[in-house]
Amino acid sequence: MTYQHEIRVSWGDCDPAKIAYTGRIPAFALEAIDGWWEEHLGGGWFHMEVDRGFGTPFVHLSMDFRSPITPRHRLICEVAPVKLGETSITFRVLGRQDGVLCFEGKFVCVFVAAQSLNTQPPEPDIRALVEPLLQPEA
Amino acid sequence: MTYQHEIRVSWGDCDPAKIAYTGRIPAFALEAIDGWWEEHLGGGWFHMEVDRGFGTPFVHLSMDFRSPITPRHRLICEVAPVKLGETSITFRVLGRQDGVLCFEGKFVCVFVAAQSLNTQPPEPDIRALVEPLLQPEA
Amino acid sequence: MTYQHEIRVSWGDCDPAKIAYTGRIPAFALEAIDGWWEEHLGGGWFHMEVDRGFGTPFVHLSMDFRSPITPRHRLICEVAPVKLGETSITFRVLGRQDGVLCFEGKFVCVFVAAQSLNTQPPEPDIRALVEPLLQPEA
Amino acid sequence: MTYQHEIRVSWGDCDPAKIAYTGRIPAFALEAIDGWWEEHLGGGWFHMEVDRGFGTPFVHLSMDFRSPITPRHRLICEVAPVKLGETSITFRVLGRQDGVLCFEGKFVCVFVAAQSLNTQPPEPDIRALVEPLLQPEA
Repeated sequence: MTYQHEIRVSWGDCDPAKIAYTGRIPAFALEAIDGWWEEHLGGGWFHMEVDRGFGTPFVHLSMDFRSPITPRHRLICEVAPVKLGETSITFRVLGRQDGVLCFEGKFVCVFVAAQSLNTQPPEPDIRALVEPLLQPEA
Repeated sequence: MTYQHEIRVSWGDCDPAKIAYTGRIPAFALEAIDGWWEEHLGGGWFHMEVDRGFGTPFVHLSMDFRSPITPRHRLICEVAPVKLGETSITFRVLGRQDGVLCFEGKFVCVFVAAQSLNTQPPEPDIRALVEPLLQPEA
Repeated sequence: MTYQHEIRVSWGDCDPAKIAYTGRIPAFALEAIDGWWEEHLGGGWFHMEVDRGFGTPFVHLSMDFRSPITPRHRLICEVAPVKLGETSITFRVLGRQDGVLCFEGKFVCVFVAAQSLNTQPPEPDIRALVEPLLQPEA
Repeated sequence: MTYQHEIRVSWGDCDPAKIAYTGRIPAFALEAIDGWWEEHLGGGWFHMEVDRGFGTPFVHLSMDFRSPITPRHRLICEVAPVKLGETSITFRVLGRQDGVLCFEGKFVCVFVAAQSLNTQPPEPDIRALVEPLLQPEA
């Protein structure tokens, strides 16, 4: 079962066009990816960085916006890893409201040491955790 | 001369890794595009929507992150339109700190009527304003 | 039972001191108040403004910060109205993590017509909804 | 001359009521206080924390909202310290657009060591910097 992250879109997320401001939407997707790590690792980026000593900064993101997001429904973000490289991981995030696709996005992160920000391969337990969850990139 | 938009990156924009949080960076680029409109049209998206009756919602964005952003320097965002279609406009935004490229991004917007959100071609004065400012997409 | 609003504090809410940035915390409290309306009215500020034609802009807020907020625990915001005037409503919000009080705040809103922003008394059903939920201001 | 911090209010700061969302306004005031430190210390909270080893977390804030904030004008925030205690500092921030007072706020911070978050008196150079800039609280 693919991880689903629920976001409560509210008044303050909307701009005068009465829809969620585009500048907020990448942050919604990132929160969903953080939630994916929490679900599978037992903690999100904060745990990763502070307790485990590594981070996964973003090197790329791309998003297509298919339908406006409003506070009328919860935003359900479906998150899955679609590629695990030597030192990188790629996520796909699909955002839906009331069954309607609102956005789809691709996000590429690299594994780094927390202090130095030097790129490094993920720890074996991370690789073992991610591999069975990989989905086809489509 | 290409429009340059200055952003004051501050403590509150940074995450515990001591760099600007990725979820904030698309909003920086959007603010720069809004600034581009203000520079050339005499007002940004607020003016466009409220006074002129049209909007330019985003249908796509993609960003590559080249170097971390910190509060050590102002973030200078260079904005230029690179394509003007029948009903869409594409911007390129390059973000630099102290001369170092931090991100490059591509942003596609469509022209819509403010209330209905129906796609429509830009008004002639908008087309006339944008065309001489177009830069090669490279 | 007093309304409890759960906030998922994440990496992106934290600053380099590894605690939630103060600039984010009033927005947490506001989201909780919006949630209180949703719980009791069937919709938050968006519903109020767009479907019902009135709003409740803030005229005052004050907050005391008692303990740092981190992503280690969900932030549970307890919200209650503590005063209902002729044209205003006052909320108390208490934010706790793992049972520890993180902040307490007082928020005063006025009832206004949606378009004109003119102050007006709340509709009778709103008054009837709020009165039984009032708690002592303490 | 009292420090004036300019904020560019934009479309993305506004909610569907076409005014700056209340949840954004404390962050505007905080950015102005950070700017005050930058002006007088040569760097804001990031410099303070990372280079100097101390921080000034907030223990209290209160704000009165006098007039709506919009993208029509720059928001000019006037910042001044109004009290310097043994281990605390209080700022007043007045936000104006086009000469109209939009908000007034009071913000209390404590001096702490960066890592431990233990309260401590400010360094002598900080005290010397702040004292001549103090304004009457009134």
